[in-house]
Amino acid sequence: MADAATDISSFKFAHRLRVRWAEADMQGIVFNGHYLTYFDIGVTEYFRVVFDGKPERMVEFNASVYVVKSVVNYKDSARFDDWLDIHVRTSKMGNSSLVISFAIVRGEEVLVDGENVYVHAPEGSPTRVSDDVRAALAKVDEHGPAKP
Amino acid sequence: MADAATDISSFKFAHRLRVRWAEADMQGIVFNGHYLTYFDIGVTEYFRVVFDGKPERMVEFNASVYVVKSVVNYKDSARFDDWLDIHVRTSKMGNSSLVISFAIVRGEEVLVDGENVYVHAPEGSPTRVSDDVRAALAKVDEHGPAKP
Amino acid sequence: MADAATDISSFKFAHRLRVRWAEADMQGIVFNGHYLTYFDIGVTEYFRVVFDGKPERMVEFNASVYVVKSVVNYKDSARFDDWLDIHVRTSKMGNSSLVISFAIVRGEEVLVDGENVYVHAPEGSPTRVSDDVRAALAKVDEHGPAKP
Amino acid sequence: MADAATDISSFKFAHRLRVRWAEADMQGIVFNGHYLTYFDIGVTEYFRVVFDGKPERMVEFNASVYVVKSVVNYKDSARFDDWLDIHVRTSKMGNSSLVISFAIVRGEEVLVDGENVYVHAPEGSPTRVSDDVRAALAKVDEHGPAKP
Repeated sequence: MADAATDISSFKFAHRLRVRWAEADMQGIVFNGHYLTYFDIGVTEYFRVVFDGKPERMVEFNASVYVVKSVVNYKDSARFDDWLDIHVRTSKMGNSSLVISFAIVRGEEVLVDGENVYVHAPEGSPTRVSDDVRAALAKVDEHGPAKP
Repeated sequence: MADAATDISSFKFAHRLRVRWAEADMQGIVFNGHYLTYFDIGVTEYFRVVFDGKPERMVEFNASVYVVKSVVNYKDSARFDDWLDIHVRTSKMGNSSLVISFAIVRGEEVLVDGENVYVHAPEGSPTRVSDDVRAALAKVDEHGPAKP
Repeated sequence: MADAATDISSFKFAHRLRVRWAEADMQGIVFNGHYLTYFDIGVTEYFRVVFDGKPERMVEFNASVYVVKSVVNYKDSARFDDWLDIHVRTSKMGNSSLVISFAIVRGEEVLVDGENVYVHAPEGSPTRVSDDVRAALAKVDEHGPAKP
Repeated sequence: MADAATDISSFKFAHRLRVRWAEADMQGIVFNGHYLTYFDIGVTEYFRVVFDGKPERMVEFNASVYVVKSVVNYKDSARFDDWLDIHVRTSKMGNSSLVISFAIVRGEEVLVDGENVYVHAPEGSPTRVSDDVRAALAKVDEHGPAKP
């Protein structure tokens, strides 16, 4: 669960965002709950690349998965106006479940890492992730986004 | 639009809430966008009293109105852990529109006031607010919540 | 880490809050990141009881602890307007660290549980939690809030 | 106050952002309070361009201005995953106050417009905005960001 040093090179996908004013608290640092929002933004952009060229499938898949567990390790603090790279990959595929790992990086420094466990339940009950989705996830995790 | 001194005695309904840690920013004060969240919480509790004893009608009405305009005057700042009273009343009834006025008060001090203009559009297009809803709004604005 | 059934009777403190409209997403359920906000609100109210009658010490202690790890298990979903009880207790005391456990309950049902690991670092570096704070935490965990 | 049709061509600066999942509510549309967050993000990016090459002055100026009034007109709704352009310009300069106008545009459609009135108070009391800042604001409003 990423308690040891996170190896950033294991990630082939990252999404960059900037810390908003409203996300920093009185301690001058990002409130811890917002990192789960950053994970969520990261996974949306990751799914966008996975379902490259089929945006309606991204939206559909995004709305079909439910988080059942989150683990977040806060190693150092992000601050207002920092650029953050949200690294994302699928670290484990079950039948209807996926473990997605995250690393939030400022420059070379891993500030936060962790994972979300998702269940795929488009109709409300757990449903096997199809082979083409599995292949598409694996492709991005191995090669990164397709070159334009 | 409440630019002058707000007369708190014109309000018969208020909802109390406490400022959350995550709502205060690096300046130590509540980020201005959160006051619209406070307005929204206030209006939900106001509708709860208006539709007293019929919670499903409150939820339905709450989901049938859309904000078309907000005006917010920030006079002083709320801080982490402050108790705030969100005063709410209907200041103007149109055919399908309502102007709801707000005053956010700490102790005796009006920190923020303003208004939201709502359109009642349960099916997507503007629809007259029914007479029984008008009467229920007017009753709370005149007498406050029913005594338990 | 509360993966099995959470025993609510092990908690002597809980804080009640209502789900806000803005916290429910397109799936009609509370966005998962907001549960960390609920944990944070719960811990503030828990510290308020622990430092009963000394609000300035609550604010000071609250600003002296930093979250280093969160684990959140989402078992079922909270919805708009639900009443939630945020149960809080200290499940482990280290030298400068505290593990605080949470259970978010609707009626009799545990929707979410988990824990935050905090480090006490009032001057920026880890500092032993004093004996009187340890005793005050233990007292609330054993007996609940003082009777008024 | 932008109640009539907003003329987008009067803006020379815009910042693009994507609507986050957590920002859309049960009606499938962005919760109205988040538009003030979008205004705030827009003004930060606008100040970044105004203080081009001097990021520490941007951060300082950003922390020296306080919002005293907001007006927001919601014309149509943004939805999850929409690209939005946040247009920003200074529409009025007082001595220590600035009125900043905003238009939030999806494609060619103005979804939201409005303004924030700010007071410049670096030491807590209103202070004249310096001539070089006035000139820098006017330059961006007339010519847009400097070409790279």
